[in-house]
Amino acid sequence: MLARTTGLSVLLIVAFLGFGAGYAGQDKNSGHDEASEAITAVLTAQQGAWNRGDITTFLEGYWKSPELTFSGPNGIVRGYDGVLERYQKSYPNMQAMGELQFSGLEIRMLGSDAALVLGHWQLTRKVGDVGGVFTLVLKRLPEGWRIIHDHTSTQKLTP
Amino acid sequence: MLARTTGLSVLLIVAFLGFGAGYAGQDKNSGHDEASEAITAVLTAQQGAWNRGDITTFLEGYWKSPELTFSGPNGIVRGYDGVLERYQKSYPNMQAMGELQFSGLEIRMLGSDAALVLGHWQLTRKVGDVGGVFTLVLKRLPEGWRIIHDHTSTQKLTP
Repeated sequence: MLARTTGLSVLLIVAFLGFGAGYAGQDKNSGHDEASEAITAVLTAQQGAWNRGDITTFLEGYWKSPELTFSGPNGIVRGYDGVLERYQKSYPNMQAMGELQFSGLEIRMLGSDAALVLGHWQLTRKVGDVGGVFTLVLKRLPEGWRIIHDHTSTQKLTP
Repeated sequence: MLARTTGLSVLLIVAFLGFGAGYAGQDKNSGHDEASEAITAVLTAQQGAWNRGDITTFLEGYWKSPELTFSGPNGIVRGYDGVLERYQKSYPNMQAMGELQFSGLEIRMLGSDAALVLGHWQLTRKVGDVGGVFTLVLKRLPEGWRIIHDHTSTQKLTP
């Protein structure tokens, strides 16, 4: 659920899954609350940028790398520039962008420096609402938590 | 590319991404070749089971947990039993299942006990081919590497 003008207000389901091997000697839980807060902040900033019509700032949530990937019904788009171009083509103006709402975010830590995020997205638009579910994989990089892979499914919600 | 009768023969693009923080003192590369071999073996076994019409064995590549998730154009399916039921409904017989081919697998380690796998899938069928791309997140569990989340996109390839 999203408070449309004040930012992200979601039910966070935070699960820190145990590891079968590897990190047995580490404190598995240290920092995962901070991580999910930081990840939520990245998505909140993305949504704010989108709703101001600012795709360039929206993209700052993604890893600025040629290795960034974005999967969907049309295959895999590669690289930060490729993903930016896809967004610019698909959403050429604020009418096409509409108002973005994220909901039902679920953040699962994958170790201390990677996370899996599931959620729903919706664009409320005069030209017809669209939405669906997304899968994000984020990593903790020197510049902060960034999306390194996005898989997004899209449904038309209104004609 | 898949050798249809002899198992999986793919170009593996294995990337071990550096971490910004957290594992600085560890040997980042130890075990990641073994991990990607083990992950490939899980997918090869899945494909073999599928092509024998054995959905129950195909499902063994997934985490046997109520927390398993499967995302797609129709939203999120939850739990091992839910995912099994979805497959059984969508693919009630070998004609519907067709012959499964995975291709273009890309395995990226996320620490030593989690991995992100991208790839393409195709079902060659008399009732019409379908295919698309998938995103898998796997974890190293006591029972081996298992898919903990699957996001699959589907396209009709032939009418």
